[in-house]
Amino acid sequence: MTRLTFGVDIGGMSIKAGIVDGTGKLLCRAAVATEPESLSQEAIMARTADLLTSLMLQEGLEPSELDAIGMGAPGTSENETGRLIFAGNLPFRNTPMRRLLRQRFDLPVFLGNDANVAALAESRVGEGRGCDSSIVVTLGTGIGAGVVIQDRVYAGFNGAGCELGHMLLIKGGVPCTCGRRGCVEAYCAAPALMAQTKAASLAHPDSRLHQMIQAQGGQVDGRVVFDAREAGCPVAAAAVAQYMDYLADSLVNFINAYFPERLILGGGVSAQGEWFRQALEAMVLERCFDLGDLPQTSLALASLGNEAGMIGAAFFARDCLQDGLDGTRV
Amino acid sequence: MTRLTFGVDIGGMSIKAGIVDGTGKLLCRAAVATEPESLSQEAIMARTADLLTSLMLQEGLEPSELDAIGMGAPGTSENETGRLIFAGNLPFRNTPMRRLLRQRFDLPVFLGNDANVAALAESRVGEGRGCDSSIVVTLGTGIGAGVVIQDRVYAGFNGAGCELGHMLLIKGGVPCTCGRRGCVEAYCAAPALMAQTKAASLAHPDSRLHQMIQAQGGQVDGRVVFDAREAGCPVAAAAVAQYMDYLADSLVNFINAYFPERLILGGGVSAQGEWFRQALEAMVLERCFDLGDLPQTSLALASLGNEAGMIGAAFFARDCLQDGLDGTRV
Repeated sequence: MTRLTFGVDIGGMSIKAGIVDGTGKLLCRAAVATEPESLSQEAIMARTADLLTSLMLQEGLEPSELDAIGMGAPGTSENETGRLIFAGNLPFRNTPMRRLLRQRFDLPVFLGNDANVAALAESRVGEGRGCDSSIVVTLGTGIGAGVVIQDRVYAGFNGAGCELGHMLLIKGGVPCTCGRRGCVEAYCAAPALMAQTKAASLAHPDSRLHQMIQAQGGQVDGRVVFDAREAGCPVAAAAVAQYMDYLADSLVNFINAYFPERLILGGGVSAQGEWFRQALEAMVLERCFDLGDLPQTSLALASLGNEAGMIGAAFFARDCLQDGLDGTRV
Repeated sequence: MTRLTFGVDIGGMSIKAGIVDGTGKLLCRAAVATEPESLSQEAIMARTADLLTSLMLQEGLEPSELDAIGMGAPGTSENETGRLIFAGNLPFRNTPMRRLLRQRFDLPVFLGNDANVAALAESRVGEGRGCDSSIVVTLGTGIGAGVVIQDRVYAGFNGAGCELGHMLLIKGGVPCTCGRRGCVEAYCAAPALMAQTKAASLAHPDSRLHQMIQAQGGQVDGRVVFDAREAGCPVAAAAVAQYMDYLADSLVNFINAYFPERLILGGGVSAQGEWFRQALEAMVLERCFDLGDLPQTSLALASLGNEAGMIGAAFFARDCLQDGLDGTRV
């Protein structure tokens, strides 16, 4: 009988959970809203436990038929004690995630970083399959990054994960959410792209880009600059070129640090698809440290979408079991 | 009987070789000049073989009493075939290092990057002893960096090593030897410090710094700015502060990428010693990504000096043997 594992993806908007089989296939999935503004951490975890119970009922499973609960959460967690230390916009501070879930389930519970576990899923059953090493970079509200080396998440000696988005791209540059200036995230995350789009539009009120933004009620999203470029607007084309220049240099930094076999792009911006991947890969290969005849890192687009977090959380839990970690210690 | 391994450190100035025992102790060592301007790659490797023979004679050993030859060389090597692909200022281009040495010794030969193998030595018997992970950053003519994760060199999927010195610190900044602009090496290597010193001195011809440079015949080295600062020169103090600001941000980038348990500084500039380490560590900890209560990376000064390359090359060869790699394939 194939093994079954819960995979839980804790996000600011929703909590997603699924049951994952031995091959990394999601047998079933469900989600509830997180509502961090109105719910306590205890209430959010009770809601998560309800979600897991409903999945079991739906599949006609007993708890004994599952081997563990794996969770991925934003921010910094401590898997040793199962605590989520902090998680950005979520009301989690030193939250005993493992203890709260084990009040309802007699299963080992393991807790990892959401970007790391998603990277594990991409590495095993997505675009990193068969690679010696891969980095998944998620271009979203922030820059998430997960590093997988020889089939295992690399998260530093303290398990904090790799904060690639908070490496400097331009020392002393524009302010970042982390309090420093010039981080990759301040140039390459979706809000940065939107700010760059807005600035280009304001500087060129007669541009097609400006018209298109006006046509959507003045709202700037992460897509309009690409759409305007596609429609032939030179102002948008210049803004996209500038953004891709920032992004290419950031990815080159990640590559020069790690030389992963594959660098996988996820998140909203990567939905631009194949032309975007190709153009970026060409820029990156030209700028990477020259390795002569040695093989170079290739770029891919993430293929698991928002299932990566659940699948990866389940994989992470199995790795922890295999490594003999104690998923019951609180 | 303890195992014995040759450790060879190929440098632009000299070739150093030693016999290393099972505990990482150098039983004996010797060196010859490399003379890359007058010698061919074959002649340099013949000279290296002579050096190894002389060490065996000196210790009264037979080749059968040694298990392997480990080599560390600058640049990019391919351990699979034992070729040194290129090595900066040295006349090595796709050089069959293994084949050349095996013409004289019936021993497996393994070839790694000099910074990587030195990091392995610091990690096992130097300042990284007992750490889950460590990065050794050498502040020399360039910025060398070696990453050791769970007791093994991490060198990327292609074995190229980690080019931390060619990550951008200031996109579009000052030109780097690699052809790009704004790399860490262009701000933090010894030549960069000397250029910064020279500029400060020229801008302040009445400074103590300028006087001290004049007193040494106009020669600027990597030490004078520290000496002038020590002597109370405010111009030198400002130049040192600027250099340390660049260096601290660069080290923070390395830490945010890897979160190693220890970051170890080597090379000429690190000879400034404990005040330098303490000041830099304080800057780095203040700037690193905030991890709440999680433990942070600590800074140390390399302790093996120029023996690290030989000891590390021997360790590297043993790791290769243990991993079952073929040290005879050419």
